[in-house]
Amino acid sequence: MSTPTTLTHLIDIASLHAGLIERLFACADYLRQQPGLPAGVAEQLRHVHAVNMFYENSTRTQLGFEVAARQLGLHISNLQSEQSSSVKGESLTDTFHTLVAMGYRLFNIRHPQVGSAQQLAALAPEGVHIINAGDGVHAHPTQALADAYTMRDHFGQVAGLKVVIAGDLRHSRVARSNIALLNLLDAAEIRLVAPPEMDLQPAPGHAAVRSYQHLEDALPGADVVMLLRIQMERMDELEIPDRETYLRQWGLTPERMRLAGADARIMHPGPLNRGLEIDGALADGAQSLILRQVQLGVFVRMAVMLTMLAPQQSWPQNHESC
Amino acid sequence: MSTPTTLTHLIDIASLHAGLIERLFACADYLRQQPGLPAGVAEQLRHVHAVNMFYENSTRTQLGFEVAARQLGLHISNLQSEQSSSVKGESLTDTFHTLVAMGYRLFNIRHPQVGSAQQLAALAPEGVHIINAGDGVHAHPTQALADAYTMRDHFGQVAGLKVVIAGDLRHSRVARSNIALLNLLDAAEIRLVAPPEMDLQPAPGHAAVRSYQHLEDALPGADVVMLLRIQMERMDELEIPDRETYLRQWGLTPERMRLAGADARIMHPGPLNRGLEIDGALADGAQSLILRQVQLGVFVRMAVMLTMLAPQQSWPQNHESC
Amino acid sequence: MSTPTTLTHLIDIASLHAGLIERLFACADYLRQQPGLPAGVAEQLRHVHAVNMFYENSTRTQLGFEVAARQLGLHISNLQSEQSSSVKGESLTDTFHTLVAMGYRLFNIRHPQVGSAQQLAALAPEGVHIINAGDGVHAHPTQALADAYTMRDHFGQVAGLKVVIAGDLRHSRVARSNIALLNLLDAAEIRLVAPPEMDLQPAPGHAAVRSYQHLEDALPGADVVMLLRIQMERMDELEIPDRETYLRQWGLTPERMRLAGADARIMHPGPLNRGLEIDGALADGAQSLILRQVQLGVFVRMAVMLTMLAPQQSWPQNHESC
Repeated sequence: MSTPTTLTHLIDIASLHAGLIERLFACADYLRQQPGLPAGVAEQLRHVHAVNMFYENSTRTQLGFEVAARQLGLHISNLQSEQSSSVKGESLTDTFHTLVAMGYRLFNIRHPQVGSAQQLAALAPEGVHIINAGDGVHAHPTQALADAYTMRDHFGQVAGLKVVIAGDLRHSRVARSNIALLNLLDAAEIRLVAPPEMDLQPAPGHAAVRSYQHLEDALPGADVVMLLRIQMERMDELEIPDRETYLRQWGLTPERMRLAGADARIMHPGPLNRGLEIDGALADGAQSLILRQVQLGVFVRMAVMLTMLAPQQSWPQNHESC
Repeated sequence: MSTPTTLTHLIDIASLHAGLIERLFACADYLRQQPGLPAGVAEQLRHVHAVNMFYENSTRTQLGFEVAARQLGLHISNLQSEQSSSVKGESLTDTFHTLVAMGYRLFNIRHPQVGSAQQLAALAPEGVHIINAGDGVHAHPTQALADAYTMRDHFGQVAGLKVVIAGDLRHSRVARSNIALLNLLDAAEIRLVAPPEMDLQPAPGHAAVRSYQHLEDALPGADVVMLLRIQMERMDELEIPDRETYLRQWGLTPERMRLAGADARIMHPGPLNRGLEIDGALADGAQSLILRQVQLGVFVRMAVMLTMLAPQQSWPQNHESC
Repeated sequence: MSTPTTLTHLIDIASLHAGLIERLFACADYLRQQPGLPAGVAEQLRHVHAVNMFYENSTRTQLGFEVAARQLGLHISNLQSEQSSSVKGESLTDTFHTLVAMGYRLFNIRHPQVGSAQQLAALAPEGVHIINAGDGVHAHPTQALADAYTMRDHFGQVAGLKVVIAGDLRHSRVARSNIALLNLLDAAEIRLVAPPEMDLQPAPGHAAVRSYQHLEDALPGADVVMLLRIQMERMDELEIPDRETYLRQWGLTPERMRLAGADARIMHPGPLNRGLEIDGALADGAQSLILRQVQLGVFVRMAVMLTMLAPQQSWPQNHESC
């Protein structure tokens, strides 16, 4: 069990606690205000080699992590599935051990297999850190932390919020991590909406979770409406003939959004399917926090890496620490 | 309308003027002579994140921009089509907005769609800069600037030069940008030569432009002979059976080059098709400026980025500015 | 003929001599102990642009070189086959000349063609350095240097060692470079074991080389057992029905390893085929030096690059030089 101020790996929300999350958010606040890091901390970081170890493509997460790592002064490399030794049949763990032997210390791993990040964390020697950037349908904790930080930034706090999460819940690691984190941070209600073929199984047991059949029923009184990305290849399974039909039945339209009220905000982890899960005008409108999620997500990822690499005792005594 | 000393985006030659081009060339001169930048300017640059946003592959342009960006001290990332979210159906503008939100400030974009760079420039917030690295058949301004700078370097000035441009003019953004820039810089003659299926439509209305049916007629008295790359897949459309036939009919051979004279110089934007649009021995010979174009192109791209990112008022008062 | 203390290119083992190898190993020792380089040397390096020019994929070698280059403070770019201009038909030498013109000075090249690295070295202007990271079946000298350095690290010296090399010798550049280097460094015996379809042709003429039909005959008394990677596509040619059959007939099993004795060590250039050329438990066991090869290989590659880029006269007089 880690103490509130240390973070070795970030695998899922279940391995976090509220004190540590508050420290990460305070660190993100600090990084947004500061132009640079204390010299001693910067010196520690500038010899660290980080790597995006991506077995699924995602420009968004990969470049976001690249910017965040470079802002901290880290070296960052990219290993992508199509260029990895995995095409030659090397196992994930052998590739990991090899990269550790080369000197890589921070791994941002995305892999289709549930548990892959945890598997690497269990094998990691001291001084090596794993960030789960998505393992199958299991977890995507930095996305959930970015989302909760965005809510905190806009609403002041996450506690007490009513949050709708709508879309393909069943296949969404973003949904699972968001539900767990919203519950941990005392959201008032977590309202889940999905087509029957896409609902969450098993349903989460948290007291705050409610399930709805129709978006219309879930929207009144909501503070946040979070849409999930629908994989186009799932449209066939749903026997939904086209984008318009899905949008009309399950998507967020301006008419539906009016049910939530003018103070409600829209979120989406991206990339967007405009005209499918969300009307494009809403994504660009005054109620959208979608680009804010991206922007603040960089600081949250910086905070995660900094907390892993520069523990509090390494900061100057009389300096506000991260 | 920009003043002579500011450059926000670089979309095409039509958006430039002679004073600004002279400033860019003077800046490239400066960068070739200086080992480094003044500390205050360097400090401004070292937090800038640039990105090659390439929806068409090109090692040449991408690595050239990478070297130029790093020489200035910028961070540089690569987003390539096959790894971009576009495979997931995200639009170019959504990807752009996402990268801006992450903190990217300088975009070097190549995209098959005419107008794509202009589209991003119209959406860019203050402090974000777009460089068009090729949008369909429309424009490739940094290549034209590199080419004109190479002519200026060799001949002293572009004004008064007679320049032959030969090859697939119709599909060439390089040709279009070069014609516009040569006209702006008062080249004496711009002689266009192309197979009928590849000529420029509409023909440019500049007074200096002349069209020729045969390379032989265009070469006498020329100062520069610029060949364009023929796309192999266009050979079929031309009903030309093989490389040798094309070279014999339309390519630059040693015999033809003698018509231009010993002081004439050969240029090509690369990559070369040896034995197709140009005899390989000419490309490697004493009259070739082809590698010089590449070498000087790095300084021209540095000058473009530096002029965008470090406006003149940010340079030390008593310091020769760029 | 180079003097003992200069290294311009690294093409194969035949172009090295024992004095230079000792200098490289001493430099690797130095780099393992030192946190940084003298300021004057670091300043020389920080403007150097290196490039991984890979026409065959290999995460392992590429990221290892990337880490090594960045540890020295170099800029490093990646050019990979699928993104290179070679898809557009540009020749290797034209791409090379273009990258040289852009300012790249250090080339780590992997190419399927034997002699490709030598071809570039012959064309390289002064101040440009070529490292052969594998050219067809010919040579992979940095791997052999990493392997010999690992043996020296473990056993104190390479001279006098008995080294088994087993597997697909015929198609292995790693085997060829290791045999040449072990011979140069006075290994006592180099014992080669391969299926008849995979033996080395022509057999190397060195006095220390012995060929064996069966691994059992080669193992007794061996200090090092080096396994080579079997390309899966070669299994068919061998008419070997499955992995288990190969492992049983030709692979390193715990039973066989006992013939070599407890002080013997296992090596493999990676990536591993577990259960094919080697039993997985052996690869992870106490006798394995496999990850040590990777770890020390980074320092050996740093030593190679540093020796190329910072000749001894550029080091401070009263400073232990590399």
